Amino acid sequence: MMTEKDFETLINRIQPADGAAVERAKRRQAELAKPPGSLGKLEEISIRMAGITGSVKNTIASCRVLVFCADNGVVSEGVAVTPQSVTLAQAINMTRHMTGMSSLASYFGNGIDVVDVGIMTRFTHPGIADRKVLPGTGNIRRGPAMTREEALRAIAVGLERAEKAKLEGMDIIGVGEMGIGNTTTSAAVLAALTGLALEEVTGRGAGLTDAAFELKKQVIADALRVNSPDGNDVTDVIAKVGGLDIAAMTGAFIGAAKNRMPAVVDGFISIVAALCAVRLCPAVRDYIFLSHASRERGYMAAAEAIGLAPFLLLDMRLGEGSGCPIAFEVIKAACAVMRDMATFGEAAIDDGYLDEIRKRR
Amino acid sequence: MMTEKDFETLINRIQPADGAAVERAKRRQAELAKPPGSLGKLEEISIRMAGITGSVKNTIASCRVLVFCADNGVVSEGVAVTPQSVTLAQAINMTRHMTGMSSLASYFGNGIDVVDVGIMTRFTHPGIADRKVLPGTGNIRRGPAMTREEALRAIAVGLERAEKAKLEGMDIIGVGEMGIGNTTTSAAVLAALTGLALEEVTGRGAGLTDAAFELKKQVIADALRVNSPDGNDVTDVIAKVGGLDIAAMTGAFIGAAKNRMPAVVDGFISIVAALCAVRLCPAVRDYIFLSHASRERGYMAAAEAIGLAPFLLLDMRLGEGSGCPIAFEVIKAACAVMRDMATFGEAAIDDGYLDEIRKRR
Repeated sequence: MMTEKDFETLINRIQPADGAAVERAKRRQAELAKPPGSLGKLEEISIRMAGITGSVKNTIASCRVLVFCADNGVVSEGVAVTPQSVTLAQAINMTRHMTGMSSLASYFGNGIDVVDVGIMTRFTHPGIADRKVLPGTGNIRRGPAMTREEALRAIAVGLERAEKAKLEGMDIIGVGEMGIGNTTTSAAVLAALTGLALEEVTGRGAGLTDAAFELKKQVIADALRVNSPDGNDVTDVIAKVGGLDIAAMTGAFIGAAKNRMPAVVDGFISIVAALCAVRLCPAVRDYIFLSHASRERGYMAAAEAIGLAPFLLLDMRLGEGSGCPIAFEVIKAACAVMRDMATFGEAAIDDGYLDEIRKRR
Repeated sequence: MMTEKDFETLINRIQPADGAAVERAKRRQAELAKPPGSLGKLEEISIRMAGITGSVKNTIASCRVLVFCADNGVVSEGVAVTPQSVTLAQAINMTRHMTGMSSLASYFGNGIDVVDVGIMTRFTHPGIADRKVLPGTGNIRRGPAMTREEALRAIAVGLERAEKAKLEGMDIIGVGEMGIGNTTTSAAVLAALTGLALEEVTGRGAGLTDAAFELKKQVIADALRVNSPDGNDVTDVIAKVGGLDIAAMTGAFIGAAKNRMPAVVDGFISIVAALCAVRLCPAVRDYIFLSHASRERGYMAAAEAIGLAPFLLLDMRLGEGSGCPIAFEVIKAACAVMRDMATFGEAAIDDGYLDEIRKRR
């Protein structure tokens, strides 16, 4: 059992990026044979990678998407178009490589780690890690999602899965989720952490009608009023208006930083968890990469609150971690440029060689 | 020798996308187990790929970046920060996998085809195809870049290299360039084709000072005045104020369409050539994918003129085809989703299986 004090100690030990390695990486980027800054975010990504690993030249070979699956009691309020049973069904389909995220992960050779942190149904499945904290959360419109102690247990699950990925040789993780109703809980958490108006943080999820969308905003307003989460106490916010998936994902981002491993944000739920992690421990920001600009309203507000920008413009809003496999390829590309491009010195063609190729004419 | 009439015949034979395959692909996307439209541009890309190949399920295994290298006489006006000799030096460095584009192509296993369509220096190099039409163009501030017949010869080089890629089993090509001074010629072509003001089409290239930037705009204005290109006659525009690289790239986009093969646009010069190709033959648009939103001013204006949108937001402005290797991965991902994701029917977990996994508890 991770106590509140254990968690605090762990957070306090997390180190920011290696500033000296960042400086070395910037120097090398300036020496590469191209107009300064002409590779844009690929340069920035490669420099940030140096800060994470401490080495200027990096290779990303092994990638894994962690998917935290949990049910949300608030679904009983009619805030989701999809039946709650889909949380379990899609968790199973992920293990069969049949979902959006898992078909991409499979294509690109990424591993996946499907973790049950709170699916409603009691079950066992060989491809799904059983870390169920609760069989679904409480209905946040009527009371808290879970106790503070349960939130800490779910955070600990995320910490554990990130550490497992590192121990098993992963160079990078992506952080995804499956949980019907979790755009509602994520919007509530984002509103509580930032003080933004509900209109700015609430989207239509998997495709709500106008009436259901109005209801969703009302449900979130009620959840914030009934539970009065303390916006300066992230664990309180997650426990009162969040979900087990958000809690575990928050733990996964912190766990990545603890293990000096980059972690990729997927969509709206993932970026809200990343914001929770950064608010708990600002140094975690150094280990986080955004992937695509999700179409779900609230995503950009969370990105601005973290202070990072996405690099894929794919109009996606599926979740599951579906943006991570493509983002891994972009980050691999950034590392390849840093490793393999010539410096101005190496790129200079000596006159003897030019004379020789002219002579062949 | 391709005559004007041959070229017209070739263009008239190019077929648009296969509408029936597009409809079948749309139907399958609607059946895949996800909220409608939630994979955004990945859905759109996979549907467009079906229109290109005629098959709903596609696999992109073999990719090649075509790089057309040529010098531009306008460099003598002081419109570039980089010495003209860099065109040849970087063409050679591409064959050594040392440049931005070629290090990425090498990392992702893409082939490259470096083609000399007009480098100033006379030389031979085993890794560079000798298709030199001229040893560099004329200075467009003083007169035409080349004759109409020379422009057609350069277009034919692009057609040939695209066809070669198809014959050698490529599933997709990217279209890049190397030519000091070619953001100046591209801006002139874009202004002539669209009638846009020079402020909207002219950028700072590899990093001009304020004074040099003002000069560049003046040079383009002079080039348009001196040569009076006919904006409704693309070949006239390319011959008078374009370049051999732009001509060959235009041919490559047309050649891809002729061979029913997708072609990826890189940055500013590449998108101007793509616009030339689409203006010559509107059906070519169906075969074109944009990659990244280049930072060079004028890129978005050209994208709007073509009517397509980029999906990578990397703040790149290097050229060479450097955006293509990453774009190939995104297009591969889109095809993987279409091929490998489950339909709602396939994703439905039958109750017997759920009963069984519950029993294991």
